[in-house]
Amino acid sequence: MQVIKTVKDLQAAVAAYKKDGVSIGLVPTMGALHEGHGSLISAARKENDAVIVSVFVNPTQFGPTEDLDAYPRTLDADCEMAQALGADIVFAPSAREMYPSDDDTWVEVTGSITAVLCGRSRPTHFRGVTTVVSKLFLLAQPDRAYFGQKDAQQAEVLKRMVKDLFFPLELVVLPIVREADGLAKSSRNVYLSAEERKAALVLSRSLAGAAARFDAGERSGAALAQEVREQIEAEPLATIDYVEYYALPGLTEAAEPLTGDTLLAVAVRFGTTRLIDNVILEGNK
Amino acid sequence: MQVIKTVKDLQAAVAAYKKDGVSIGLVPTMGALHEGHGSLISAARKENDAVIVSVFVNPTQFGPTEDLDAYPRTLDADCEMAQALGADIVFAPSAREMYPSDDDTWVEVTGSITAVLCGRSRPTHFRGVTTVVSKLFLLAQPDRAYFGQKDAQQAEVLKRMVKDLFFPLELVVLPIVREADGLAKSSRNVYLSAEERKAALVLSRSLAGAAARFDAGERSGAALAQEVREQIEAEPLATIDYVEYYALPGLTEAAEPLTGDTLLAVAVRFGTTRLIDNVILEGNK
Repeated sequence: MQVIKTVKDLQAAVAAYKKDGVSIGLVPTMGALHEGHGSLISAARKENDAVIVSVFVNPTQFGPTEDLDAYPRTLDADCEMAQALGADIVFAPSAREMYPSDDDTWVEVTGSITAVLCGRSRPTHFRGVTTVVSKLFLLAQPDRAYFGQKDAQQAEVLKRMVKDLFFPLELVVLPIVREADGLAKSSRNVYLSAEERKAALVLSRSLAGAAARFDAGERSGAALAQEVREQIEAEPLATIDYVEYYALPGLTEAAEPLTGDTLLAVAVRFGTTRLIDNVILEGNK
Repeated sequence: MQVIKTVKDLQAAVAAYKKDGVSIGLVPTMGALHEGHGSLISAARKENDAVIVSVFVNPTQFGPTEDLDAYPRTLDADCEMAQALGADIVFAPSAREMYPSDDDTWVEVTGSITAVLCGRSRPTHFRGVTTVVSKLFLLAQPDRAYFGQKDAQQAEVLKRMVKDLFFPLELVVLPIVREADGLAKSSRNVYLSAEERKAALVLSRSLAGAAARFDAGERSGAALAQEVREQIEAEPLATIDYVEYYALPGLTEAAEPLTGDTLLAVAVRFGTTRLIDNVILEGNK
């Protein structure tokens, strides 16, 4: 496995793949790889001739008061994991490599899809995501790119971007990977104290409860969200950012009673750590 | 030559080219093709295995009071000219094909490069240009894309976009093509009355004069711009939008005395018709 640090070297490697007609799978990450990322790399390994894992803590998707500096950076361990799962290239560029100009070129999805949920609490976040992912797509020229359902809104926004701009690739979104006790795997889980870690289980537990009530026939989105909200509010260490539900695809307002697929999503702070989790209520099932 | 109207059919044609390892030249146009476009198509024909000419009057690069509806549409003649010059495909989509969502995904170059010159008079223009050109690049996947120096700022903005987002292609910018009397070829020249047509010669005449003074040793950008301004102001049918000069590449403020390459550019109205023209003062020559 090669570790590539510059745009120029990655472009040369990709040009060689393209010349040989090799299919490319791209797994964009911010590093601090866990089993959630692992499931993406394994899927990419199975479905493509070559696998590129990018490891880049993208500054433009962090707000000024967010955890850019504190975000865990574990490149050596990331490379070991990527290699063990069969990646061919880890691309780990500097910020200057990815943002070569002082003025910036942005790729931005506008409208309600980026205004709700995390877009409301983090107003410049998705612009940073869509910009850096566009750059990675144009550098790696993947046939398939892999993202996790944990970042459900990110997945919807990127699907919209791929559709609107006509990126010639397939966007693959894979299920949330959870710890044995239900906590969604996240690079930010390392921030949690033992008590916060335990308290955070209310997210997966309340969402699973809502999904069970939905499967049993409850079709009031408001009632399901309210129950999740009450369970989280009962947890003293939790501070709710949002508990909301939107229609899939596209995150439009969900009409009551719920029909079709609905995303029920939460963002909750435990101390200084903001965690997200979600479940898809599959009305089309 | 094929005339393709849908995104899906273009994607299929491009996929076939890519499978065969065929190099692709793209000439993005808004139609109403003239010899300026012709020079781009001919160059693309010479340098690539396949040539795609897009003909799309892009609504998002027109402001609300601009000439979107009046813009000349001459698809049959455009196809004849493209075919005569050896194009393989004319891609002429509808606006709905190019903009499939109600909310929009934008590609935008920010900073002074889009704030000066036409960016000041047409604040949403370049966002429309960079967005539609990104879409065309991702659809046609060209090895080379061709633009005219007549739209000098557009060329600089697109170079910046290609650099920042890492589009895997070469951007080729070709010289302004002029009528025998010096008027820069433009699809908008058809709007001019006979009198306005004659008055508009002041643009090329004054810019050529400035270039001659520069070549003779004048290195004051302010003096050169002032002379152009005075000549245009002496023409009763002309109303100046701007007469300005900026350093190349990047359109940063040009320090006095001029060193390096400098763009001297004008935008002037004749009746309701806004024309642009420019000259590069080649300090590096």
